[in-house]
Amino acid sequence: MPELRKDPIIGRWVIISTERGKRPSDFGVSMEKKSTKLCPFCPGNESATPPEVLAFRPDGSQKNTPGWTLRVISNKFPALKIEGDLNRQGHGIFDKMNGIGAHEVIIETSDHHKDFPNYSDRTAQDVIWAYRMRISDLKKDPRFRYTMVFRNYGEAAGASLEHAHSQLIATPIVPKRVSEELEGSKKYYGFKERCIFCDIVRQEISDGDRVISYNDNFIALEPFAPRLPFETWILPTEHYSALEDIPEKAIPDLASLLKETLKRLEISLNNAPYNYIMHTRPVDDEGIEYYHWHIEIMPKLTKVAGFEWGTGFYINPTAPEDAAKYLREVDFTHEEQRVIKQQIL
Amino acid sequence: MPELRKDPIIGRWVIISTERGKRPSDFGVSMEKKSTKLCPFCPGNESATPPEVLAFRPDGSQKNTPGWTLRVISNKFPALKIEGDLNRQGHGIFDKMNGIGAHEVIIETSDHHKDFPNYSDRTAQDVIWAYRMRISDLKKDPRFRYTMVFRNYGEAAGASLEHAHSQLIATPIVPKRVSEELEGSKKYYGFKERCIFCDIVRQEISDGDRVISYNDNFIALEPFAPRLPFETWILPTEHYSALEDIPEKAIPDLASLLKETLKRLEISLNNAPYNYIMHTRPVDDEGIEYYHWHIEIMPKLTKVAGFEWGTGFYINPTAPEDAAKYLREVDFTHEEQRVIKQQIL
Repeated sequence: MPELRKDPIIGRWVIISTERGKRPSDFGVSMEKKSTKLCPFCPGNESATPPEVLAFRPDGSQKNTPGWTLRVISNKFPALKIEGDLNRQGHGIFDKMNGIGAHEVIIETSDHHKDFPNYSDRTAQDVIWAYRMRISDLKKDPRFRYTMVFRNYGEAAGASLEHAHSQLIATPIVPKRVSEELEGSKKYYGFKERCIFCDIVRQEISDGDRVISYNDNFIALEPFAPRLPFETWILPTEHYSALEDIPEKAIPDLASLLKETLKRLEISLNNAPYNYIMHTRPVDDEGIEYYHWHIEIMPKLTKVAGFEWGTGFYINPTAPEDAAKYLREVDFTHEEQRVIKQQIL
Repeated sequence: MPELRKDPIIGRWVIISTERGKRPSDFGVSMEKKSTKLCPFCPGNESATPPEVLAFRPDGSQKNTPGWTLRVISNKFPALKIEGDLNRQGHGIFDKMNGIGAHEVIIETSDHHKDFPNYSDRTAQDVIWAYRMRISDLKKDPRFRYTMVFRNYGEAAGASLEHAHSQLIATPIVPKRVSEELEGSKKYYGFKERCIFCDIVRQEISDGDRVISYNDNFIALEPFAPRLPFETWILPTEHYSALEDIPEKAIPDLASLLKETLKRLEISLNNAPYNYIMHTRPVDDEGIEYYHWHIEIMPKLTKVAGFEWGTGFYINPTAPEDAAKYLREVDFTHEEQRVIKQQIL
């Protein structure tokens, strides 16, 4: 019997189609290949990108020249533009405003052939540091009400370049998906005086069957009502409503759990494309009690079809308990050989 | 400058990235091909499908045998199952219930090589009639609160079989996307005492630049804040909140405008995959004043990436005014030759 499950935060129902019970190998997603055409994100091609807004340069090299290990630039084709006023306007029943915002690209490594699951600890931590530094900077702009980090991996997930990168966007409005989470969690807090995400973490640790792994400060789990097969969340086990609020000493734990989780997904799902996004509080809501910073990782295994478009709820062919079991039991032993083989190819 | 536009019904913002200004030919979506492997939806293969729940049989032939021109069956792999109780349950903060519902497939034609844009008027009208008849029947089941028709065309839009078909689902809950529209339009009605969709139709006819075409009873237009390039809506110009409420004499107008609009999209977008969905009122809300039945057609030209997943708002590279212009100016003159060429290939 299929099961309807309700997301406790925003109230979205999903259909867990347990009888389809899809295993990782059933999705038939093919391995992404690394091409060798000229890459604007590689060292030496700095002039092909907009100038950098931040770079980690251990060798003290000059701006916009090689020598960096991580580099942040404005998006060459930004969805939103940094200069101008909002200029809110109405036309009859319609409302519009200028698309003001920031859209930056975090080039996470200078190595074209590395990606997150295979980063050194230092590189993984640097990525998190870059997110924090750019968010803190963009928050100073009074036009922006929200900042969101996201990462598209693989062409099917919307990545137009294969060199490892993530993106950061600052928007003049709080996005709808976030507003829904804020409203839902605020309502819960009003009723229980507890953060709903904290309650979820507690119940998941006690239930156990949707947990993938955890360390001292963070947990990786499959949510109770996932939209997509192998949808995976990472949350701090303590309450923090923004990445910038998390103590510096916990960053290594976040970087290593994110890296490990992406590695588990990579092995289980044959290097499938995915998106991850980071949900934080709005800029103006300092340290709120009811909202909990987290990462949502969404592997691209199924197609969003008419049913999902029309209803806003999702048919998920893999129960999260099964997905968590696959991901927990990933066999890392042959991993080293696999990586070597890939490099030879 | 990109433009942020707000959907007046549910308040979703979209980014109209006018500078990207994508034309139909820029999307590079390839033509879908018709394969010739055994098709369970073709006449003679009736035993490969669940038994029919409705069929149009002009020759008076037997159930589940050839002779039909249109056939409705239960989905062999239903997202929701027809038998059982809802059995609502809680587990800590989590809620679930059995996935009860109906999931039917409307096999629109017996001809494997025809699709909606090339149907006869009669076939196109029969499809609409089949929707109405099945909806009216499913509404009698007290477990169901909502019925939705949808159509996936092309593999990238989620169609697993290429023989022309649409689907109908009846659900025990009102879907989230619909609830949002209901809430938004109810709020507007409370304030203005007018249906927001009726106001939109009036303003669009007066503005003109987003209208594709219309006839005595229906209009096809690009919405002011479309999520996707070439997203197209069809609405009755008079107020009706459900397909079943529309007078029988208006059905030919609906069938012909739907057919014509799909033809315009087919020619403009090189036969791109698409989904369409029909939004109606909930089963219990007879003839409500504030909600307006409509069709949303969503061509599959871009990829939903991290930004869209995380924010719930969309980056659309084609302004709806431009899309409407392309669709209005479609050249039908070479169409006959194109169809013949396709049939030869």
